[in-house]
Amino acid sequence: MNAEIITIGDEILIGQIVDTNSVWIANELNSIGINVIRKSSVSDSKSEIIKAIDYAKNSADIILLTGGLGPTNDDCTKDALADYYKVELIENSDVLNHISELINKRSGFLNQRNINQAKVPSNCKVIQNSVGTAPGMWFNDGDKTIISMPGVPFEMKEMMSKFILPELKKANTNDYIIHKLVLTQGLPESKLAETIESWENNLPEEIKLAYLPSPGIIKLRLSARGTNQKYLQTQISKQINLLQEIIPDYICGYDSEQLEDVIAKLLLTKGITLSIAESCTGGYISHLITSISGSSAYFKGSIIAYSNEIKENILNISKSNLEAYGAVSKQVVEEMAIHVRELFDTDFSIATSGIAGPTGGSQEKPVGTIWIAIADKNGVISLKYVFGDDRLRNIQRASLTALNMLQKRVNGKKM
Amino acid sequence: MNAEIITIGDEILIGQIVDTNSVWIANELNSIGINVIRKSSVSDSKSEIIKAIDYAKNSADIILLTGGLGPTNDDCTKDALADYYKVELIENSDVLNHISELINKRSGFLNQRNINQAKVPSNCKVIQNSVGTAPGMWFNDGDKTIISMPGVPFEMKEMMSKFILPELKKANTNDYIIHKLVLTQGLPESKLAETIESWENNLPEEIKLAYLPSPGIIKLRLSARGTNQKYLQTQISKQINLLQEIIPDYICGYDSEQLEDVIAKLLLTKGITLSIAESCTGGYISHLITSISGSSAYFKGSIIAYSNEIKENILNISKSNLEAYGAVSKQVVEEMAIHVRELFDTDFSIATSGIAGPTGGSQEKPVGTIWIAIADKNGVISLKYVFGDDRLRNIQRASLTALNMLQKRVNGKKM
Repeated sequence: MNAEIITIGDEILIGQIVDTNSVWIANELNSIGINVIRKSSVSDSKSEIIKAIDYAKNSADIILLTGGLGPTNDDCTKDALADYYKVELIENSDVLNHISELINKRSGFLNQRNINQAKVPSNCKVIQNSVGTAPGMWFNDGDKTIISMPGVPFEMKEMMSKFILPELKKANTNDYIIHKLVLTQGLPESKLAETIESWENNLPEEIKLAYLPSPGIIKLRLSARGTNQKYLQTQISKQINLLQEIIPDYICGYDSEQLEDVIAKLLLTKGITLSIAESCTGGYISHLITSISGSSAYFKGSIIAYSNEIKENILNISKSNLEAYGAVSKQVVEEMAIHVRELFDTDFSIATSGIAGPTGGSQEKPVGTIWIAIADKNGVISLKYVFGDDRLRNIQRASLTALNMLQKRVNGKKM
Repeated sequence: MNAEIITIGDEILIGQIVDTNSVWIANELNSIGINVIRKSSVSDSKSEIIKAIDYAKNSADIILLTGGLGPTNDDCTKDALADYYKVELIENSDVLNHISELINKRSGFLNQRNINQAKVPSNCKVIQNSVGTAPGMWFNDGDKTIISMPGVPFEMKEMMSKFILPELKKANTNDYIIHKLVLTQGLPESKLAETIESWENNLPEEIKLAYLPSPGIIKLRLSARGTNQKYLQTQISKQINLLQEIIPDYICGYDSEQLEDVIAKLLLTKGITLSIAESCTGGYISHLITSISGSSAYFKGSIIAYSNEIKENILNISKSNLEAYGAVSKQVVEEMAIHVRELFDTDFSIATSGIAGPTGGSQEKPVGTIWIAIADKNGVISLKYVFGDDRLRNIQRASLTALNMLQKRVNGKKM
């Protein structure tokens, strides 16, 4: 079965809010085997809403609307639906009772706007809104299903979870879609595609592959679709195993994991402690590490040595190295890693030094040149990278690359 | 002029990513007086893309596509456009040169996939992608304009800002929408709304107000629409002046400024240096500060003292204070600020210590309790905040609150 999601509201079209409702709905529909073929957003206008429903009916079996059900003048989804079906709005007594109770509990007074919220198109089945005042509406329209929900996220989610998804699942018992995400780090998109080309070309027909690039991490998404859930699961596992053999050094996690989650698990399991000396990454690696709850079990702390003075005075980087090679050099980044590890008394350490840009580059060391070092009890290893011109992306890519280097080093993989 | 934004990609329809591209585009189009009447998202499918363009042409003058221009097999926007216009894909030598240069700089090898990226439909005008390999495309189609851009946000934004928006503005000189953003920090949304209520109720008819809340910062957007740009500008300025009188202590910046930009200007102008001692914020304040190019002129560095051991050994926090009051206390956070300022020899310093959560709270110090201190040559001042339960939001709110405290302290405002 195919679905279209229509979100309604001027605030979406003028770029005032990020639409997370449709993301959540798409995910949930997907998990019960319903294919979302289109999403659209229209303004709070009766004619636009009607046009959107009409167009969606060309290709979708199920049309889910959110928004435009509030008590204020700009909300007109209910009127649009009544017009569309050429029916009247009639007061629903169950809904009115529920609204009265809710308003009472909030110590408010029932006004005309609240009473109007209890009116619904006469041909709809009401979906109770247990956490708000705007009822949902379900329309059986020939072989199509049209569902209208509030735009308030937690009201919409409550309605979807309690009533709509179970109902839709009953009508769609035979389709399954299974997704698996593979996180890769260290290969640019086109190089990754080239490396796994023959694997990709030999994927079974029921599995589709997608590349989802972001700064520092490229996710591969395998999606299997069919009627036999167990079979699909097996097929996905088989392909993941094959992929692991092709790019073992570049896979750094699965599914909704971030690289920092992978690091967390790894350091916790092995009882390893970590410290960091950051120059060009300016605290971003420390932020990624401490974004994980419980990171204090393995992360002791960092020194952000942004100026050379701090590199010398706090991290004890030798003046001669700074002068001879500059702060962005193998010599300095390795000293940074060794010294912070000693100073903080940790098992492993990370250090970064580079030119994040957009200014500060030279012919010899262009913007984007970044040295990263990992130290442990066996010594130190460092690598030079040349990223791009964008400051924030360079910081992100360097940070994720550093985390991946740490992961490889702890796991004894080659860099 | 009316526009439709079409985002392309399976990842949008299966709910894997939140579409922030279209939010940004809608905002930018709005600011040059172009009305977004519809947004839609379709899958990486030639027929769906073609159908979407066809439908959009019914009501939009300008159609902006993002996504599906990558080098991998799932990307098919270019093929869809070539099919739609019944033209061939031809190699564009400028684009190929640019791609070669870019790949060279990244020490990669030009492969067939890269070369294919230089092919574009023969009837399009190429839009150079200065920060990536996928070119943008501009189609003049009767009285309609169709523009295709990469889905990678910073590539799309670069193209829009440098080329597309200026071109579209040339063709749309009569409508003006002027937006002015006011950044506020320190008042929750409902309290802010209450404080400025009578100002809001007296806004002239042509100015609309919107509240845009985010962790730590609430932006107020004033939008004025009309044909007389100068008049609109004057009206906005007048209202901003009135607002400044009502909430002088809570306004911390304007327009696309971030609080870290405001800090940058302030410290640079006054020739002030800064160091930071972070515990619960884990590097995020340092990251915000160093996300600004040129921050090395005023920022010397930080100590992320995540464990008590580091607080004692590196920041010299007295064991007796740590034992008597705990790390999350006025005594410890003030010592942290004083010591890091001395250690790094800076004019000002910031320190944070708190419970970011979601675990680690107690009855006396619940999750979200965060102490922030600012030290300068005159001494140290600290404040306790109690934020919410969400770890990342607590980190963000504490960091922005710390920056705002710094700003107030430097400006001699009351906290």
